[in-house]
Amino acid sequence: MPADPRLARWLQRVEARLEATLPAADQSPQALHGAMRHAVLGGGKRLRPMLVYAAGAAVQADEDLLDAPAAAVELVHAFSLVHDDLPAMDDDALRRGRPTVHVAYDEATAILAGDALQAQAFTELAGETRAPHALRVAWLATLANATGAAGMCGGQALDMAGTGATLALDDLERLHALKTGALIRAAVRMGALAGTHDNSLLQPLDDFAAALGLAFQIRDDLLDIEASSEQLGKTAGKDQAQAKSTYPALLGPDGARQHLDEVAARGRQALGGFGDEAGVLRGLLEFAVSRAH
Amino acid sequence: MPADPRLARWLQRVEARLEATLPAADQSPQALHGAMRHAVLGGGKRLRPMLVYAAGAAVQADEDLLDAPAAAVELVHAFSLVHDDLPAMDDDALRRGRPTVHVAYDEATAILAGDALQAQAFTELAGETRAPHALRVAWLATLANATGAAGMCGGQALDMAGTGATLALDDLERLHALKTGALIRAAVRMGALAGTHDNSLLQPLDDFAAALGLAFQIRDDLLDIEASSEQLGKTAGKDQAQAKSTYPALLGPDGARQHLDEVAARGRQALGGFGDEAGVLRGLLEFAVSRAH
Repeated sequence: MPADPRLARWLQRVEARLEATLPAADQSPQALHGAMRHAVLGGGKRLRPMLVYAAGAAVQADEDLLDAPAAAVELVHAFSLVHDDLPAMDDDALRRGRPTVHVAYDEATAILAGDALQAQAFTELAGETRAPHALRVAWLATLANATGAAGMCGGQALDMAGTGATLALDDLERLHALKTGALIRAAVRMGALAGTHDNSLLQPLDDFAAALGLAFQIRDDLLDIEASSEQLGKTAGKDQAQAKSTYPALLGPDGARQHLDEVAARGRQALGGFGDEAGVLRGLLEFAVSRAH
Repeated sequence: MPADPRLARWLQRVEARLEATLPAADQSPQALHGAMRHAVLGGGKRLRPMLVYAAGAAVQADEDLLDAPAAAVELVHAFSLVHDDLPAMDDDALRRGRPTVHVAYDEATAILAGDALQAQAFTELAGETRAPHALRVAWLATLANATGAAGMCGGQALDMAGTGATLALDDLERLHALKTGALIRAAVRMGALAGTHDNSLLQPLDDFAAALGLAFQIRDDLLDIEASSEQLGKTAGKDQAQAKSTYPALLGPDGARQHLDEVAARGRQALGGFGDEAGVLRGLLEFAVSRAH
């Protein structure tokens, strides 16, 4: 992550908000509450919340308005991971070195915890009394749309349908634009909406967010093959094992790296009209492009 | 259901809205869209949407404002059924004589379809441009709260935790107040909010809704044992087979019937200050109390 000192403050803010908003683990129903907390708390880069704050900073939004959308987008992200990890989906037993929710609890609790986390995200936004009603509605529409069939859930469905098949580049871009891109764009948009409704600012930020999401994904695909070929001893290429379409598989490793460069350039260009206030957004893009894990 | 001619009109309204709001089955990702439509369309009494319209009628709300909350509460109800039917939950293969979503499609698609239906409910409310922002926020807060850990999902978790144990009456009432009661109360509240913010009207309607939810549940429990003892040849008592706490098990069949009468009286009393405008609400309560299926 970039070295801007604001990131530490923002991280503290969103962690405090998440901690406060999640139901207490010692209150009934304990298993559900414990599973929700297990899914959300305990680390992570909090990329999406950081994007909310960084996009807000780019349009001089009041920082106090950003905690609710920052927490809400992380709650949706966390719910999607809980459901993705289920045996019927990716069947993952570990996440960030800890047992996944259905392993730590059970499948039924994991399904319910994911459902409750999604609802909690919308409760968070609807109940942010510091924000005007119109802003809350705009946030809610943005996040709900990015979560559902036209966003993350739709992308996940495309991913399942595409496993084992070779997708065309257009189809692969659409898949990622929905599966991971929609929530990244929602994070940027929610942060920006807290400071402006001016479309001449919202549009370039959205273009930036679309490029950022794609850059993250291409780098992810590259790390998956680089890890298998260069860092022997680490888990070998999971994408290949699952027969998923990837940028390196489609374009070759060099083609994928070149595509990543082009996408990154598009992202930098989108921020051309912004000054230092978009510094953290720029830093997050460079991190996405060059990260080693 | 009661014989009021408005019910047919309301049913038509909500069916049209649901049909229009669900993504087309021939658009990609087809399986997800098909599963969402399978879960929502194809009949049912639409009790919760009818409560939205009936509560709106009780406070002279503009009927055009009621379509969005009516559709939204049904989308949440449908999502909860899709997830409840999953093998890790109740493991049901049939619902209303049709294969459940995970049987007609697959488990992963059923999980995603449920998730997408929840998001669609909030999209529906946030995007209802005929309603002022403040009303949309009030609806969204009401429905999100009724859906999550403090509502339906919490009640489902209590139900799982209580299976096989004998619950005290207080615990059983809390379970049902959350599991099925929260959404019924949200339906009534959303309908009422479209016409009034006067707490002297909202409060009795909420008391009514709480009684109605409980009456439905007690009657459900009674039907489960009456079916097994009186209508031989039909499915025998599922609650008993699943070792679930029920009102008849806790109070005896006669005690449960008496409790149902008391709850119904409470519901009628709550509407005491209303005139004919609450006629459909009254009819729905009598239906809940006396229905034979």
